[in-house]
Amino acid sequence: MASSAPSAPPAPESYAQQDHAFTATPPGDYTLHHQHHHQPPSSMAEHGKEGKFFGGSSGFPPETNPNVIRSFQTVDRDSSGYIDENELQQALSSGYQRFNIRTIRLLMFLFKNPRDALRIGPNEFAALWNCLGEWRATFEKYDKDRSGKIDFFELRDALYGLGYAIPPSVLLVLYSKYDDGSGRNIELNFDSFIECGMIVKGLTEKFKEKDLRYSGMATFKYDEFMSMVIPFLVSYD
Amino acid sequence: MASSAPSAPPAPESYAQQDHAFTATPPGDYTLHHQHHHQPPSSMAEHGKEGKFFGGSSGFPPETNPNVIRSFQTVDRDSSGYIDENELQQALSSGYQRFNIRTIRLLMFLFKNPRDALRIGPNEFAALWNCLGEWRATFEKYDKDRSGKIDFFELRDALYGLGYAIPPSVLLVLYSKYDDGSGRNIELNFDSFIECGMIVKGLTEKFKEKDLRYSGMATFKYDEFMSMVIPFLVSYD
Repeated sequence: MASSAPSAPPAPESYAQQDHAFTATPPGDYTLHHQHHHQPPSSMAEHGKEGKFFGGSSGFPPETNPNVIRSFQTVDRDSSGYIDENELQQALSSGYQRFNIRTIRLLMFLFKNPRDALRIGPNEFAALWNCLGEWRATFEKYDKDRSGKIDFFELRDALYGLGYAIPPSVLLVLYSKYDDGSGRNIELNFDSFIECGMIVKGLTEKFKEKDLRYSGMATFKYDEFMSMVIPFLVSYD
Repeated sequence: MASSAPSAPPAPESYAQQDHAFTATPPGDYTLHHQHHHQPPSSMAEHGKEGKFFGGSSGFPPETNPNVIRSFQTVDRDSSGYIDENELQQALSSGYQRFNIRTIRLLMFLFKNPRDALRIGPNEFAALWNCLGEWRATFEKYDKDRSGKIDFFELRDALYGLGYAIPPSVLLVLYSKYDDGSGRNIELNFDSFIECGMIVKGLTEKFKEKDLRYSGMATFKYDEFMSMVIPFLVSYD
């Protein structure tokens, strides 16, 4: 599906100039690496609590790319400062492409403010946008022929590049879920790459929350295990 | 959706006579309780290895209800002794209702023979049929107005009756995935009940495989954790 290749954003000033396209935060200020790999998802939304990241009346961190703010405010029609899953789908369409509502729900779940499961605010949105920017840059790096799709080995390398060294045998189980039974080789577009990657990222971070010593082992109570895993199952409506 | 209520099977001789409708095995011979609650899913398919459960040339356990054998053989057109997910969907339609392919894949995953991930044989099919029979009897017991649907509390009680004491807060996360956003109260038809219940059953059994002392705690390696959870995510084609 060539149409599902990442679309050009409306105002990509920084796109050609830096490796991490669409990052709203200047490199070195609050690094993406720090933001995404070493903190569990629930704390991603907490940057705003550290006063220095707050700025202006918009509720966005200072130096947030104006396009990010504009995307958010365009869909937040009642200016409540929060957007729901359908609004998030619209907002991201301005900078990326239209994501499947399944991917959107996964993004909402991973980036949500712990106090509000159904909506996200400016800080969560900015963090999500930055993360997608990093992932898009990685996707494009591995999509060498610019077809808008990557194969299994490229997916593996891309996730490795993002800090996720998932065993190939495990990744293959996830990757094979995108097999449409047509006998064609599976390739993932950006939407599926994000979905696939966010599953790996989210589950890995949930595991790490219980593996504080980085031993590669984690112990769960039954209730913890069930409530950790079930949110990753998709919605069935 | 009244149309999604469990449909009458073609040959329900035993249906009105016993509590466990559609069980192919007589009560007391090889109890359903033993079969489903104390053994991990991978061993469910192993009964046939114990010689006394094998019988006849059909590959089915002795005393298997002829309707079960007929359902299997009708869809196994090449008489290979194995059926795939589409054939399973057809076979179950004769005795139950048409299940969503998502539910079918979950059933395939939970009842599959460890040596063949994509097909199931007579023993797996008989075990699956028996399990569905027990679950259908439970569903009907809690569907007091015979509407073909059950609500959250009935689901909780039904799962408890089947041996799964899942915390209500965790079950609510799973149950809320069936919310279609219409504002109507959620109710589950038999297909969704099976999907929901099989997720609980499957994850619980995976957990128990690592909690041999029944302590309520289990320790996983990262790879184990990831490869255990990912199969429960649905297929994305």
